[in-house]
Formats: sequence, C-alpha cells, structure tokens
Amino acid sequence: MMSKSDEEVTHTENLLSLKYESLDYDNSENLLFLEEERRINHAAFRTVEVTRWVICGMIGILTGLIACFIDIMVELLAGVKYQVIKDNIDKFTESGGLSFSLLLWATLNAAIVLVGSLLVAFIEPVAAGSGIPQIKCFLNGVKIPHVVRLKTLVIKVCGVILSVSGGLAVGKEGPMIHSGAVIAAGISQGRSTSLKRDFKIFEYFRRDTEKRDFVSAGAAAGVSAAFGAPVGGVLFSLEEGASFWNQLLTWRIFFASVISTFTLNFVLSIYKKKPGDLSNPGLINFGRFDTDVSDALHLFIILTKCGIVGALFNALNNWLTIFRIRYLHRRYLQVVEAVLVAAVTGAVSFVMIYYSTDCQPLREGAMEYPLQLFCADGQYSAMASAFFNTPERSVRSLFHDPAGTFNPQTLGSFTLLYFILAVWTYGLTVSAGVFIPSLLLGAAWGRLFGILLTNIPNSVCTTWADPGKYALMGAAAQLGGIVRMTLSLTVIMVEATGNVTYGFPIMLVLITAKLVGDFFIEGLYDLHIKLQSVPFLHWEAPVTSHSLAAREVMSMQVTCLKRREKVGIIVDILSDTTTNHNGFPVIENDGPARLCGLILRSQLIVLLKHKVFVERENLSITQNRLSLKDFRDAYPRFPPIQSIHVSQDERECLMDLTEFMNPTPYTVPQEASLPRVFKLFRALGLRHLVVVDNHNKVVGLVTRKDLARYRIGKNGLEEMSLAHT
Amino acid sequence: MMSKSDEEVTHTENLLSLKYESLDYDNSENLLFLEEERRINHAAFRTVEVTRWVICGMIGILTGLIACFIDIMVELLAGVKYQVIKDNIDKFTESGGLSFSLLLWATLNAAIVLVGSLLVAFIEPVAAGSGIPQIKCFLNGVKIPHVVRLKTLVIKVCGVILSVSGGLAVGKEGPMIHSGAVIAAGISQGRSTSLKRDFKIFEYFRRDTEKRDFVSAGAAAGVSAAFGAPVGGVLFSLEEGASFWNQLLTWRIFFASVISTFTLNFVLSIYKKKPGDLSNPGLINFGRFDTDVSDALHLFIILTKCGIVGALFNALNNWLTIFRIRYLHRRYLQVVEAVLVAAVTGAVSFVMIYYSTDCQPLREGAMEYPLQLFCADGQYSAMASAFFNTPERSVRSLFHDPAGTFNPQTLGSFTLLYFILAVWTYGLTVSAGVFIPSLLLGAAWGRLFGILLTNIPNSVCTTWADPGKYALMGAAAQLGGIVRMTLSLTVIMVEATGNVTYGFPIMLVLITAKLVGDFFIEGLYDLHIKLQSVPFLHWEAPVTSHSLAAREVMSMQVTCLKRREKVGIIVDILSDTTTNHNGFPVIENDGPARLCGLILRSQLIVLLKHKVFVERENLSITQNRLSLKDFRDAYPRFPPIQSIHVSQDERECLMDLTEFMNPTPYTVPQEASLPRVFKLFRALGLRHLVVVDNHNKVVGLVTRKDLARYRIGKNGLEEMSLAHT
Repeated sequence: MMSKSDEEVTHTENLLSLKYESLDYDNSENLLFLEEERRINHAAFRTVEVTRWVICGMIGILTGLIACFIDIMVELLAGVKYQVIKDNIDKFTESGGLSFSLLLWATLNAAIVLVGSLLVAFIEPVAAGSGIPQIKCFLNGVKIPHVVRLKTLVIKVCGVILSVSGGLAVGKEGPMIHSGAVIAAGISQGRSTSLKRDFKIFEYFRRDTEKRDFVSAGAAAGVSAAFGAPVGGVLFSLEEGASFWNQLLTWRIFFASVISTFTLNFVLSIYKKKPGDLSNPGLINFGRFDTDVSDALHLFIILTKCGIVGALFNALNNWLTIFRIRYLHRRYLQVVEAVLVAAVTGAVSFVMIYYSTDCQPLREGAMEYPLQLFCADGQYSAMASAFFNTPERSVRSLFHDPAGTFNPQTLGSFTLLYFILAVWTYGLTVSAGVFIPSLLLGAAWGRLFGILLTNIPNSVCTTWADPGKYALMGAAAQLGGIVRMTLSLTVIMVEATGNVTYGFPIMLVLITAKLVGDFFIEGLYDLHIKLQSVPFLHWEAPVTSHSLAAREVMSMQVTCLKRREKVGIIVDILSDTTTNHNGFPVIENDGPARLCGLILRSQLIVLLKHKVFVERENLSITQNRLSLKDFRDAYPRFPPIQSIHVSQDERECLMDLTEFMNPTPYTVPQEASLPRVFKLFRALGLRHLVVVDNHNKVVGLVTRKDLARYRIGKNGLEEMSLAHT
Repeated sequence: MMSKSDEEVTHTENLLSLKYESLDYDNSENLLFLEEERRINHAAFRTVEVTRWVICGMIGILTGLIACFIDIMVELLAGVKYQVIKDNIDKFTESGGLSFSLLLWATLNAAIVLVGSLLVAFIEPVAAGSGIPQIKCFLNGVKIPHVVRLKTLVIKVCGVILSVSGGLAVGKEGPMIHSGAVIAAGISQGRSTSLKRDFKIFEYFRRDTEKRDFVSAGAAAGVSAAFGAPVGGVLFSLEEGASFWNQLLTWRIFFASVISTFTLNFVLSIYKKKPGDLSNPGLINFGRFDTDVSDALHLFIILTKCGIVGALFNALNNWLTIFRIRYLHRRYLQVVEAVLVAAVTGAVSFVMIYYSTDCQPLREGAMEYPLQLFCADGQYSAMASAFFNTPERSVRSLFHDPAGTFNPQTLGSFTLLYFILAVWTYGLTVSAGVFIPSLLLGAAWGRLFGILLTNIPNSVCTTWADPGKYALMGAAAQLGGIVRMTLSLTVIMVEATGNVTYGFPIMLVLITAKLVGDFFIEGLYDLHIKLQSVPFLHWEAPVTSHSLAAREVMSMQVTCLKRREKVGIIVDILSDTTTNHNGFPVIENDGPARLCGLILRSQLIVLLKHKVFVERENLSITQNRLSLKDFRDAYPRFPPIQSIHVSQDERECLMDLTEFMNPTPYTVPQEASLPRVFKLFRALGLRHLVVVDNHNKVVGLVTRKDLARYRIGKNGLEEMSLAHT
C-alpha cells in the first residue's frame, strides 16, 4: 500500500517485513514508575479508574457523532446524485438519448470517487480500506505508522463519504471501527500531535498499554454505532482484536459501546425530527423481522454450503491484491484504478437497469428513487431498486420487500455482476468497508435461492413464505464466509435484525460458513494482514513447534549496555542503522555479563536529549533529575537519534541507567520451547524477551518477528524469510 | 460448608484458608512431554483439535439432556404436589378445616426438602447451593475437592429437583452451570474415577489445562440450557469464569452452548409432543415480549436505584452465612434448618393466600393450578398465582399477565415476604440457584412500582401501559444487583425475552445496578467465595500494591531438590506434614544452588511408585522407563505418600529428576513488583513461580496464597492472615 517507486515490487507470501515496529504492552516498571505508583494512594487510583470510565464515555459520544455525520453526509450527497440522475433518466427515457444518462452517471461516480481516492492516495494512504486489519494489528501489538492519527481520521471520514456516495460497492460500516479507534487513541492521550495541542490531561494514560485498552473500546464503539449492536461491538473487540482480556476493561468497553449507540440514535432521532425515538439503531438497520423462524433447519445445511462463495471471494481478492502490490504501487495508478471502478460500476448498473424488463408495481414509501424507465405508469424497474440505491437500502429491500418483488433473472444477473464488482472494489485506494457489499451479495443470492426453492414443484421441504428470510441467511453466510467471525457476528446480526429467534439459524450458518471457508482459504482480514507481511502473532504458536527451543528462535546479535555506559557508545549504538535495535538488555559493569535490566531506545533518546550524563571524573555528581513526565511528553513520537546533538566532550561522559531501565524484565531459559516462549510473549504483550543461560547471562533476545515467522505450511512447520521491504 | 465438629467455628473475613490447593494451568514441559509433542505431526494435531470439537459437542448434548431431565422431573413432582394440595384445599374450603391444608402443604414441602437436604448434607456437601462460586474458583485455578465428580453431579441433580419441587424459593438454573461443568470434566477425561471406568480415550486431555478449557465449555453449556441463551452462556463463561482467553477456545465454547440449547429444545419439543418446534428455549423462558420499548428512559433511573435492594439482599445473606458458618456447621442442624425453611415457606404461602382478598377472573390457560378458595366462581386468588406455583411460572405471570391481574397490596406483601424467604434460603444445604428467586423478587417489585406509577394522578412521566415491562426491568435490576454481571446478563436477558429492543434499557439497568451495588457490598458469589476463605485471584493485583516486591511476598521456606537426589530425602520431604509443599525447585548438584527445573509433588509420587531409582554405586544403569501415560493414569487423584512403601535399601538410591522436572519454569527476580508478579502468575495460570536472584539462585517461591492475601481494605492495602481451617 505504501509503495516505493520501483517498477515491479517482488512479493512473496513467505515474507515477514522488518519495517513494522512493535508496541510495548508491558509497562516498563523502572524506578521512576514505581516511585510514582507508590506515591499514588488508593483514593487517587479511584480517580484514575473514574477517569477511564469518563474517557470511555467520551469515546462513545464522539464515535456516535462521527457516525451521525457520515450517515447524514452520505444521505445528502447520494441523495443529490441520485436525484440528478433520476431526473436526467426520466427526461431522456421519453425523448431518447439515454446514453447521455449513462455518461452522466459514470462521470458523476468517477468524479466523486476521484476526490476520495486522491485524498487517500496522496494524503494518508493508511486510510484506505476498512481499517479493520490495521486495528487488528494495532491491538495485536504491531505499530502501523499513522494508523491512529487525527489526520487519518479526517481522511477516512471524508473518503468513506465520497466512496459510498460515488456508488462503489462499499459500505460505511468498516471504517467506523477504524474511526472509533482513532478517536479513542486521541482522546485518551489528552492531546493531538497532529494539531500540536496538548490539553495537559490524561497524562497518566500516555503509554502503549493504556492506549491499547482505549483503542479496544473505540473499535467496539465503532461497531456499536455502525450496526446498533453494543454487545456485538464488545464481542468484536474481543474476538478479533483482544490480545488481552480483563473483566474491568470489558465493562468499560461495554459502556463505550452503549453510549455510542445511544448518541447515534439520539442525534439521528433529532435530525429526523422524531426526538426521543430511539428505535432506529445503527448506521445500517436491517429493519425488524417480526415473524419467527420455525422448522426449516434443513435449509441451513444447503445455505451454509455457500461459505464456499465467501472463500471464492477471498481467493479472488487475494490474487487481485497480489497483482496490485506488484504492479499498481504508484499512487496515480491507484487513483486511476479507483476512478475506473467507479465509472464501470455506474455503467454496469445503468446497463443492467436498461436491459432489465422486470417491472414491479410502485408501493407507498418502498423506494427512495423509483426509476420508471420503460415500465408502465405506476410501476418501477426492480433492477433499479438493487442498483440505483446506496447498498444499505438495497440490503433492506432484499430483506423486506414482499415475495414477488424481484424475479430470479434480475437477482441472478445482479448477484453475478455485483460479486465481480465487490471483489474488484475491496482493496482499492479508497476508504471503504466490505461488510455491506458482502451482506448485499449474500442477500441477493439468498433470496434467489429462496425463490428457486419455492418454485421447485413437489418440493419435499417445507419452505418459508418470506424470501426475505433466505436473504438474511444468505447475507449471514456470505459475510461469515468472508470475514470468518462467528460469535460477534451472530450477535451483531441478531442485534441488527432485532429478533432473537433468528439467532440460532444465524449461528449455525456462521459456524458452518467459517468451517467451510477455513477449509479453503483464510479470512479476508487475515489474508490482507499476511499480504502486508505484518509480523502478526496469532493466538497460539504453531502446534508442531515444540521441536524448537528459545535458543533456536532468538536473535543472537544482542547489543547489551552496561549499567553505567559511556555516552559515546550509546550514541553509536543508536545511530547504527544496520541493526536498528529497539531494546537493549542492561548488564552489570563488572563480573560476568549478568542481566540486570532492559532499556528501550525511546528511553535512551529521552535521556540523551535531556543530557542525563555523569562526568567521568566525578561520579558522585547527581544527574539531571528526570521524571516520568519527560518520557510521557515525548511519547509516542520520540525524536530520531540524528536530531540529538552530542558533543565530543559529552561522548566521554557516562550515563547511569539504573533509574530508567526496567530492572525486572521477563526472561526465559534457552531450553524453553517455542510454544512456551510464545505463550509468555503474547499473554503479557511483550516486545522484548531476554533469553538467559543458567548463570543469568544474556544469550539472546526474542522479539515479535522471531515468533511470527513460524507457521504451519503444507509440509509442516515453515519459516518465513525476513525482509526490510 | 464442609464443617468440623467443634462447637463454634471462629470465622473472620480476614482469613485465607490454606486447605485449598491450586490447579496447574501451566503445562509441565518436561522432556517426556516435549518428546511426545515432537513425535506428533501436524495431521495428528488436527485430529486432537477435531476431538476437542467432538467433546464439546458431547458436552452440549449431555448438558441439554440433564437439563431436560431436571425440567421434566420438576414438572412431574411439583405437579403431583400442587394437585394434591389443590384438591385438598378445594375440599376443605367449603367444609372448613383449612388448617389441615396448611399442615399438609408444610409437611409435603418439608418432607421433599428433607430428602434433598439429607442427600446433600451427608453424601456430597459440595453439591449445596448453585455451584457457581465453586466453578468460578475451579476456573480461577483453585482445587475445590470433589467439585467435578460424578457423585456430585448425581446429588446435585436429585437435590435440585427436590428443592424446587419442595417449594423453596430457589431456581433450577444455577445448578445447571455446575452440572455442565461436571459433565465437561467427566467426558473430557474419558473415564470416571467414581465409577472406576476408564474408556482409554481422550488420554491426551488428562491435565489441568485441557480440563479447565472443557469445564469453561461445560459451564457455558449449562447457562445456555438454563436460559436458552447460547451467546449468554459464552459470555458468562468469559465474564465470570475465564482466567484465560483464546479465540479458538471461545469458538468451541460457543459450539457447546449452541448444541446444548438445541438438544434441550429438541428433546422438550418431543416430550411436549410438538416435535421440531424449537421456539421454546431454555429451562426458564420469559415468554416473548412483542411490543417495543420506547421513550421511557426516565424510568430506568428510578428503577436502577434499586441495585440497593440487591445490595441489601447480599448484606443480609452475608450476615446469615457468617452465622451459619459459626453455629450451624453440624450436618443434622443444616438439614433441620432446610426442613424448617421449607415448612415455613409452605406455611407463609398458605397464610398469605388465605388472607388475601385479591380475586381475579379466571382466564383460559393462564394458570396451571388456579386456586379458587373464597373467590367467586370463575375467579381465582391472585396471591396464589405468585405463591402456589413454581417460581419460574410465577415470573412468567408477573411478566405477562395483563394489567390489573395483581393489586398493589398483593404484590407489596408478596415482595416483602419473598425477600425474607429468599435471603434465608440461599446458602441452605440444598442444591439450588439464586437466579430465579432474584428474578421473581425483582419482577414483583418492578410490577408493583409500575402499578403505583400509573396510579399517580397528573403524572409528569409517560408510563408504559404494560406493567410487565416494569416487572422485566425490576427483575433485571434485582438480579444484576445480586450477582453483578453486566455483559453476560444483558445477553441472557435479551435471549430469554426474545426481544432485542429491550437490550438497551436492560443494559442501563444492569450497569447502574452493578455500580450502585458495588458501592455498598460485593456481589453474592464473590461474598461466598470470600466467606469460604478461598485464595481467589482477582483480575488484577490491588492497585496500590506496587510498593511490594516479590522479595516481600514470596515464601522463603522453599524446599529445593537436587537434580540427582537421594530417595530417602525425597520421601522425607514429601512426608513432612508441617510444610506440605507441592512444588519443588530443582537445583544443580554441584556448585551454587542454581535453578535448573521445577518438579511437582504429584510427579515425585508417580516416580516413587514406579521405583524410578538409580543405584548409588552404578550410576550408568538405566532407570525404569516411564512414559507420560503413567502420569496421566494417575491423574488427577495421585496416591498419598503414605501409601507408597520405600524400603531402607531403596532410600539409599538416587533418583534422577532431569527427565521429569520442568526444565524451564517461569521465574521472576526478587525486585519485581507485586503487580508484575501477579500479572505473570495469573495470565499464565501458574501454580508455582520461582523467585531467583541475579545469579539464578533460588531465593523463594510465590504461590497463589502469597498473591491472594493482599487486598484493598478500608485503610489501603491489607494483608489477610493464613490459616489451616
């Protein structure tokens, strides 16, 4: 995504990129930290806890507001667009010359998407896509540059409004999760580095651990706003994101989710001039299914076979993404592709509507923009209700329009074309989510399936009268087959349909879709994480990795520092671009190299910047006093070593690391098996794990990439190669 | 609960019992284990994974069946009882002599409860209560004796049938969670030690780690069957139980839950002669709420104040439990108390019905056993529909009977009396849950509150027409105030009502009930865990505990073994009842005492039993070969050291521990802060954590009790005293 300008980027799946740094989800408990913690009494901790709840509330409110903003803007922009096109089509239907309408539609789409794509490609490429893989990585402990910056949020919000309005086969739900996460990261730090404003609040939370917890809450609030599913949001955060689980944290996440849904509902109810009517949850609202599902279990078995369709989607998109990484890495090419897809989407939609002969009687309030075209008066083109609409509305009409609204030919050709468009669209350089296109696709073939089943003469199965139910099951199967969530998706779907009796069939569909899909290929998000060569730590070490020991996986080139180290040596080590280490075990000055602590590059940088030196001759002189505040102020964008000037005299000074290093880093012996190391590393969210021999001497260092590079391949355990691209 | 025969047991809250042992949720990765793991290839691991799913499926099926059995038996037994009493009352209403009916009712109750209580008190005391605190402890890593034995399950099931039929203010839902857990523990081990049957299957899962995972699934399946809430079950397991979180595990738990609900529904639908009708989920079914909740948010604020009622319940029950622990620790006294409560419950119910003048017109199918008493023909006594019924049915009538069915006086007196009865009942020596009484209580005052609110003239608030909604909110508030779950309880309530629109108000009610309740006193389960002095590890170390270091919390009296140790020394150490250690750091034979491994009492016992000795003179002779199977066969009931005979000659032999000890135990340095130690200990589910100095020499050992004894009290950090009772 963040491409270089070489002509062709070689790309292999067996690559792990070294360009990603890790986050530090283990507090560096140095003396400064312990001193501060010991100063804080119980009452003060209670304040901290209350503050956490307040922040979660604010995250919920802001996320809800952003969701409102996106929703309203899309409504307005898409409304204007569809109105213009409808007027145009209505005009030219009679007089002839509909090719002009085709042109108008394609051009309008292309123009809107052009703006959205330009913003993303040239200002903030990380705002592309749904952002869910990136947030997954963040919560996993991988630092994706710029991912939680304010600028990203702005581009994301504008981008998603433009790409949905531009008629692409995308949804605005996925980006809400990213937006929530950015809001959480921003608020919890009490400042914006993009805006260079520091509100001097929430300073206690300026570290990776706390930020991660809030980002989980933000992601949950995003889901909650997108689908009106507060419980689903919490589960999403846990199922997809969590690398860490804690009851108290879960309650806070839940709180943020509830507040987020509530805010969205409240503001939208005012906007829609029905204040207080909170019955309209979420950006996408499936509408209420009021009838119960009864005995039609046999159908789910058939339906769930279609986890295959999801797997096919993923496989095609996987190839396409590899193609894009190899050949479309120039920004202008990416923009061109996005614009092309927009134009094609418009054109195809038009052609489909044009050649469709499926006319349906106009019902009161059923459609926002009914296209009459060549239908008789009082009728409208059914194909248009699928294509000439935002995808959210199309999903709703597939779910709820009465039987007979769509004929099988219409649905069949729609499914096929929309499938191709959706595969092509995901991964474009625009901000957009894959939830809604998946739902739409699934709803279309689900409904088609339902219609066909009803038409089979002498059918042995009882069928549902309402094809909307098939649409719902199809939507669940398709989405489940693509993203492979089960628990959270069940709850999200149930919360969005508002009918618990659908829970059980939806569960069955999702579990089967997952099992079937996993048989063929991974979930879409995992695929994209893999294609980006991110050192992502899965839940467990590969099952057959007990044959490896820490000795074999660790990096041997560890740079150790002495407890009292020469400033010159430190500067040289930090400036060494060939190693570029971020964590340094600290060893005792005298005797064998026994481990006595661990210090991070970022901490050393702050120490150098504040010249915390001791002169060589006079060891008793006290150093400049540093407090935790100095470290927090520099967090998270520590200056590079090149920006710090150290004079030749200063190079001869010493630096006493005792107070600043973490004196109790976690260690493992060299014989520990890889799963054991992995478990420790992941459970505690470590960044560096020191490997020691049985004299407590440092023999190696395990970092994320050392663990992430092992995976189960076709021939058992495989080792990925590391690369700097 | 498991009382001794002293006259008065002194009991203080500041006590931590030493009688509880820990479970080992960290695999002992010794050479045997690694050898086995390395032998297993990828395909075999896949089989293991599939087996896990199969076991979860079986857990679901069996739990569902047990739930069916309990449900049907209670229906039958309670049906017979109520019919007999109703006939008797009907007979004596006209002829006079209702005091005989009173006597009959009280006697019947007392007789049924007597049997249930005798079973529990004299055969398996751990089957008393709901079992939820015990399962929480198990999942937390505390070994509660007998808690997952087959005998416990049998007593539990019989006990709960009898106590519900006996008319106590109890529910059959809580015990389902315990039942599910026992089933899980039994199936996953492929044998029953109670029955002395070993099916020679699932041997791979014979260790604490795997067992814990299955027990989580069993508990979830239990909730799922009890409330027809599969998602709620998973969340319950995570929110209340989990000490460990893993995506794959969650999916398996979810699978077990879904299967469990399905089985229950399927079997019950056949029993009720409507096969295939799966619309009747769970043991308790709240019935469908079909109308939506709209704008009446102001009410929740009032309602949620009643987290206070929950707190009051807990406080009273807390005092009562302390009283019981002190004075009622003899078994026969416990039985007498249970019988007394049963008789009083019957008598009070009768008196209430007798003096109530609230007659309501009889509606079709509204009541199972309508009592006419002194009401006119075609009418029945309203009080009887609350008292003369199983609590499940009473809850349903409070939720769903139309407005006007109950008058405020009836509800008021019912609430008051039932509150007293419910407080008195929880903690009796019978198998019984607190969910249903809480719901019933809450539903009663909720409905009362709704009626009163409607009657206020010139009310400023809009009210709901349906008092059943107030009942539902009251039930949620009461249950939330007592057990303090939020996320899982929200989902359970929503799944049980079948209406998602109630989710939002229920969430608000539950969150507020929790916050309000926590302000006064802990949740009921936590209270009971504390009263049992269990060394329970909460989610985090006390916030102000950074002032403590590992050095200060660890046990200094560590017994270390040498890598090659004399058998006599090992036997003496294991036989030493004053220390009774369970884990022993292993140190190198020569040089300073450097840590090289950790071995458990249970492993040493197996080694001694199999005489894995090396003769002193001939070190090169190979030992008896032991395999992992020998350890698994002995798991989990390792014989006591006293049962192993070691001759005087053998005492002189050596034992080489290299192959059997865990060569890579987790360690911490002495300076590590308590929260840091705690985090490592809890995240990895450890039992022993070795504290080493910076020469890797053993200086101490941290076990569960060392961490559990610190807590936040009124004056900051408190240390509990340890006792052997």
